[in-house]
Amino acid sequence: MHTAKTTSTFFLETRKDTERICAPLKVEDFVVQPIVDVSPPKWHLGHTTWFFEEFILKAFLPDYRLFDTDFAFVFNSYYESVGKRVIRANRGNLTRPSVQRVYDYRKYVDMHMERLLDMNIDNETELFKLLEIGIHHEKQHQELLITDIKYILGNNPLFPTYSEGFEENPLESTSQDWTIVTEGIYEIGHAGSDFCYDNELGKHKVYLHEFQISNKLVTNTEFLAFVEEGGYERFDLWHAEGWDWVNQNAIVAPEYWHKIDGEWHQYTLKGLSKLNLSAPVAHISYYEAFAYAQWKGMRLPTEFEWEIAQVHFDWGSRWEWTESAYLPYPGYEKADGALGEYNGKFMVNQKVLRGGSVATPNNHTRPTYRNFFHPQLRWQFTGLRLAK
Amino acid sequence: MHTAKTTSTFFLETRKDTERICAPLKVEDFVVQPIVDVSPPKWHLGHTTWFFEEFILKAFLPDYRLFDTDFAFVFNSYYESVGKRVIRANRGNLTRPSVQRVYDYRKYVDMHMERLLDMNIDNETELFKLLEIGIHHEKQHQELLITDIKYILGNNPLFPTYSEGFEENPLESTSQDWTIVTEGIYEIGHAGSDFCYDNELGKHKVYLHEFQISNKLVTNTEFLAFVEEGGYERFDLWHAEGWDWVNQNAIVAPEYWHKIDGEWHQYTLKGLSKLNLSAPVAHISYYEAFAYAQWKGMRLPTEFEWEIAQVHFDWGSRWEWTESAYLPYPGYEKADGALGEYNGKFMVNQKVLRGGSVATPNNHTRPTYRNFFHPQLRWQFTGLRLAK
Amino acid sequence: MHTAKTTSTFFLETRKDTERICAPLKVEDFVVQPIVDVSPPKWHLGHTTWFFEEFILKAFLPDYRLFDTDFAFVFNSYYESVGKRVIRANRGNLTRPSVQRVYDYRKYVDMHMERLLDMNIDNETELFKLLEIGIHHEKQHQELLITDIKYILGNNPLFPTYSEGFEENPLESTSQDWTIVTEGIYEIGHAGSDFCYDNELGKHKVYLHEFQISNKLVTNTEFLAFVEEGGYERFDLWHAEGWDWVNQNAIVAPEYWHKIDGEWHQYTLKGLSKLNLSAPVAHISYYEAFAYAQWKGMRLPTEFEWEIAQVHFDWGSRWEWTESAYLPYPGYEKADGALGEYNGKFMVNQKVLRGGSVATPNNHTRPTYRNFFHPQLRWQFTGLRLAK
Amino acid sequence: MHTAKTTSTFFLETRKDTERICAPLKVEDFVVQPIVDVSPPKWHLGHTTWFFEEFILKAFLPDYRLFDTDFAFVFNSYYESVGKRVIRANRGNLTRPSVQRVYDYRKYVDMHMERLLDMNIDNETELFKLLEIGIHHEKQHQELLITDIKYILGNNPLFPTYSEGFEENPLESTSQDWTIVTEGIYEIGHAGSDFCYDNELGKHKVYLHEFQISNKLVTNTEFLAFVEEGGYERFDLWHAEGWDWVNQNAIVAPEYWHKIDGEWHQYTLKGLSKLNLSAPVAHISYYEAFAYAQWKGMRLPTEFEWEIAQVHFDWGSRWEWTESAYLPYPGYEKADGALGEYNGKFMVNQKVLRGGSVATPNNHTRPTYRNFFHPQLRWQFTGLRLAK
Repeated sequence: MHTAKTTSTFFLETRKDTERICAPLKVEDFVVQPIVDVSPPKWHLGHTTWFFEEFILKAFLPDYRLFDTDFAFVFNSYYESVGKRVIRANRGNLTRPSVQRVYDYRKYVDMHMERLLDMNIDNETELFKLLEIGIHHEKQHQELLITDIKYILGNNPLFPTYSEGFEENPLESTSQDWTIVTEGIYEIGHAGSDFCYDNELGKHKVYLHEFQISNKLVTNTEFLAFVEEGGYERFDLWHAEGWDWVNQNAIVAPEYWHKIDGEWHQYTLKGLSKLNLSAPVAHISYYEAFAYAQWKGMRLPTEFEWEIAQVHFDWGSRWEWTESAYLPYPGYEKADGALGEYNGKFMVNQKVLRGGSVATPNNHTRPTYRNFFHPQLRWQFTGLRLAK
Repeated sequence: MHTAKTTSTFFLETRKDTERICAPLKVEDFVVQPIVDVSPPKWHLGHTTWFFEEFILKAFLPDYRLFDTDFAFVFNSYYESVGKRVIRANRGNLTRPSVQRVYDYRKYVDMHMERLLDMNIDNETELFKLLEIGIHHEKQHQELLITDIKYILGNNPLFPTYSEGFEENPLESTSQDWTIVTEGIYEIGHAGSDFCYDNELGKHKVYLHEFQISNKLVTNTEFLAFVEEGGYERFDLWHAEGWDWVNQNAIVAPEYWHKIDGEWHQYTLKGLSKLNLSAPVAHISYYEAFAYAQWKGMRLPTEFEWEIAQVHFDWGSRWEWTESAYLPYPGYEKADGALGEYNGKFMVNQKVLRGGSVATPNNHTRPTYRNFFHPQLRWQFTGLRLAK
Repeated sequence: MHTAKTTSTFFLETRKDTERICAPLKVEDFVVQPIVDVSPPKWHLGHTTWFFEEFILKAFLPDYRLFDTDFAFVFNSYYESVGKRVIRANRGNLTRPSVQRVYDYRKYVDMHMERLLDMNIDNETELFKLLEIGIHHEKQHQELLITDIKYILGNNPLFPTYSEGFEENPLESTSQDWTIVTEGIYEIGHAGSDFCYDNELGKHKVYLHEFQISNKLVTNTEFLAFVEEGGYERFDLWHAEGWDWVNQNAIVAPEYWHKIDGEWHQYTLKGLSKLNLSAPVAHISYYEAFAYAQWKGMRLPTEFEWEIAQVHFDWGSRWEWTESAYLPYPGYEKADGALGEYNGKFMVNQKVLRGGSVATPNNHTRPTYRNFFHPQLRWQFTGLRLAK
Repeated sequence: MHTAKTTSTFFLETRKDTERICAPLKVEDFVVQPIVDVSPPKWHLGHTTWFFEEFILKAFLPDYRLFDTDFAFVFNSYYESVGKRVIRANRGNLTRPSVQRVYDYRKYVDMHMERLLDMNIDNETELFKLLEIGIHHEKQHQELLITDIKYILGNNPLFPTYSEGFEENPLESTSQDWTIVTEGIYEIGHAGSDFCYDNELGKHKVYLHEFQISNKLVTNTEFLAFVEEGGYERFDLWHAEGWDWVNQNAIVAPEYWHKIDGEWHQYTLKGLSKLNLSAPVAHISYYEAFAYAQWKGMRLPTEFEWEIAQVHFDWGSRWEWTESAYLPYPGYEKADGALGEYNGKFMVNQKVLRGGSVATPNNHTRPTYRNFFHPQLRWQFTGLRLAK
């Protein structure tokens, strides 16, 4: 990313990838927001574009004119420092701007971005840093696009197919093995000059006690045993809040599982099919991951254990719930201004997930990447790995 | 409607009118449900079609095959006796079937209906009665389509125009006059062989005491005085429930009124413009209508007073809130089966509105027509006429 | 009530009756508010007292000094025009003032009232009218005290007895008979100089069509048949709102009915016992009354039918739901000032009940008395009588 | 606690302390539950007693007969494994059993406990361990009693005094100093044979980076500056969830602060008085503690930093929010059976507090003690100490 050429290429490819993800959709699919966590695909398209306009073009491209002055209002997400936002729950009621107009917006911003990127950008500059964040921000939204599309289609009684080509269930064919990591001081966090988020910074030492960690993700076969043997009915396996969540929402299986005529099915982006037994379990909450581990007499790894042990196993098909709460590393400091709202303000009541998933864009995640969600959420491709 | 020819024509024209109403929409506009009372236009298109399929084609057209067996599930509204319905609040999350497919559904059903209507239908038969209800049912949904479209566009921060040709603000140019109706016995309810709903039947006598009723609807000028003179801040003008509603929802003016830079504007289907002072006030709740009347030292008419007096004034641009609760007439009996769910089961906690509005299709309303809504609702073209 | 003597006696007896009702309670029972509709007995004791202090002593007794200046804040109910009220839902959290102090308050106010009543009060004066209202207001609260005490004790898992002497289940021993009332003009409303509420005034004519009305209230035996034959599971018997209410609250029987080891029991103020089959059914909502009538192929009477027919049957053990909405009579006008808030502002979304109940104080009700509650409420002694 | 004598004394003194705390209350104060977190004092009295009956007397005292078989139902708290509990939110509606009867219950159980404690109890036995837990459990409820009483009285508009003798505002007279702790490996957790909870066990190593920690708690003077300088209006100081909490609850100052005629007051157990400026701030949420630290450009300590540094400062007047989430220590295992529900099932979405407060009973806390609450809660005596 050192020359104008490569930076520009990286930018444009990322932008095209986003549109490639949306290609199989019908216009109607772009509009709705069935739950507060799922944004309309149209909004993702506009919001990622607005990010470049707001933080880069407005500041760095001389004489840049906004595509539409109302769009800041419509496509801001949670940046309280940048004008009044649309209340999140209402995103799914906005039928305008139309999908076509959002694509026009993308085209307009891309054109101006190309003009800007034609100049050489020194990778020490603020512009370069913002550009990097903007691109990675869009990659994050690519993953959300896939999971949000899955939610929109998977909760439709017609169970439409997104794409026959999207394989979300890689086999977990390895045989069960346990890696032993010995007690001692280890280093955690990101080092080097590659891009990372601020929450990975502050490379620091932690003391780990000896532990064992599985080389495999828990599979549907294994999780099905938990379901069938009454795991969702035994309060002693659950956190108090998890148990309330199970009962208030009548949870009896992972998201997208359906028992039809006595047989378990699952909705995937290919449509409705029989449960794929050898695939790693997906779409479970932290509460379910924890209860499963309790049932096995084991536990989830901490994020530090995961980071140290990850050289010993394959990962990347499921985001893996850890036992760790999402908290700042020693010496963590929020960036100034609007970008300071990116990570730090979420550091309460969330759990860290490590790894990556079938929906994660290429080269987007890394061993130090800290994903985080509230413990009850299931619409991401979330799974678990046992430790003891 | 005595010959196959005219019945068929009436049916097809109604069907075309529905599609004409939707012509100015973009695909995106068909999908959303911003509040529970507002249905997606796509749903109206499908639901009215399903009505003909479910109650007529399935029963009367030999060898009729359903267009899509899943559609009963998607397009049933509240007919509990006809299979499991989609929970109403979720209609706005269904991106499929697509708009195009719903139009295909309409075409398919219309084609089969035409085939059925080619036969002569005696107007004493059940088929004829169902057909009449189906057509009037669709006309009701035409009005809802217009008000729902207004809500969808009017709550979008971009305030899009629906149609420059839709005039919703006729002038109230008549000078103020009061009709006196003398005390005595009057006849209420529908008579004759023309179509009416079951809730209008049971022609019966009522005793009315002398009253006066205005020849004009209350105008925006008049209602603005109430707004400006603190009507929304004087609890003594309101019902206890109305006062709670005002405070919990921070109501300060009719729906679609916006004070911009110190000047009152209103959203109409033509877009945002300055408040049209000479037009009759629209989009007020019963609570507001009542409070306004209190403020004037007058009251709303009862539905009986309205029905008797209506020969003396023009009506039809606003549904007029009355003081009457929506209750059965003497001798009212629900029809058997699913159609029995049409009216009777709503006869609690709702208020009767009389008249018609700029959104009401031609020939759909009549002097005995009893419209009804919950007292807090405002998304219809609702106004008021004073009595004393 | 023409001499100081009788007025004073009437006042003091009413005040003593209130305390007699509370005599069986423990201090703890005076404090809680298990649902918003049920007020703490302590609050009733204080509120009725505050009414005399606020509207009579402050205005008419020279040099009267308030017992405690904070009490207006604590014991005002809904009189928005008289200072800031305590939010109703919070009444049950106020442990102070103590019960003892509230009794001291009563004593203090009674003493001053006696002093005032020693003067002759002309029954045309405003003072006389306020006094009458104050006394009847307290009688209304006597009935609420009994029903609220029943709710507090009856929802305690220990099912404590209030009093072995309180008989709430008179037998309905009469045999079934139907009174026929012929079509014609009838007079409705209160006449004469006796006390009545403003909502009964405006004697006026109504036109009634011929109807029949039962001489008996529906009994527990009859209502049990509805329960056992699936009345709560047949949506076609219910209003749409009633059906939602049944399902959201999992209603399967009248309030205070408990099926224990396969046998129906009921909680009465004597404690828990087997269901008294020959007693009139009590503690049903309007929705249940309506559904029962539908199930029998009959209906509820209107409040006018009830008022005209009541000379032909016994009434007074249950408040009888009518089909009528609670609306103003022709010519109804709210009183000025705070007392104007007494009745008129509740005239929306409520149903009229006629008659009286085992909890109604002697001489408090009359044939023209219009009680009113929201259709879902059941904690009063509510029952039904059929018409057809 | 090695002889029957001392164990028995420890038990009885703890039991008496509980009743001493309740001595200033009126009967009414024992009954209510103004928010879900605050239990009625009567319930605390009964619940702590039930604990001894359920887990000790039933199991270890031959021929013990329950005082009242309904009490398990009323006084169980959250032990799902021991019968159906009363829904927590409803505790405040139970006027029976009466306060007197609960005291009788305590007397009955104490008498039987004394009989049991007259035997020598080996401190290796399960009985001894249960007894220890039961006593410490009661001490925890003593602290809750004080904070719950404060909430009940402090939210009463009459602001009653609990006790003139309860001093909750010790002066923070020390001058500001910062302790530096150097980087390295430290040991965390409880060692030795003294009583501790299971969540303190698993003595283990942690690696700490160099940090500084204040020798003083933040005072009211300091926190007032944050209030006055707009700390509650600057979103950039808050977690996203904290900001939502501030806005949804209209938070402008710590709990129990009242601005009266332009001057800040606070409610303490002595009644309402002017804000004590030199006292450590109390009754703040974690969100407020965090925002204050952000405003100062510092942070909260982790629970490990606190535990290592605590030898260098005084603590014990306020529970101190830490940055640490409440999570299991390495090797943590829940106890079997009902007591296993004591701590582990709360290890999600809560924050650790260290130290102790003016409401904590003597000898109840210790340097390794891990208190925990949800981040929004304020009714405990919670404060903060800065780190950097």
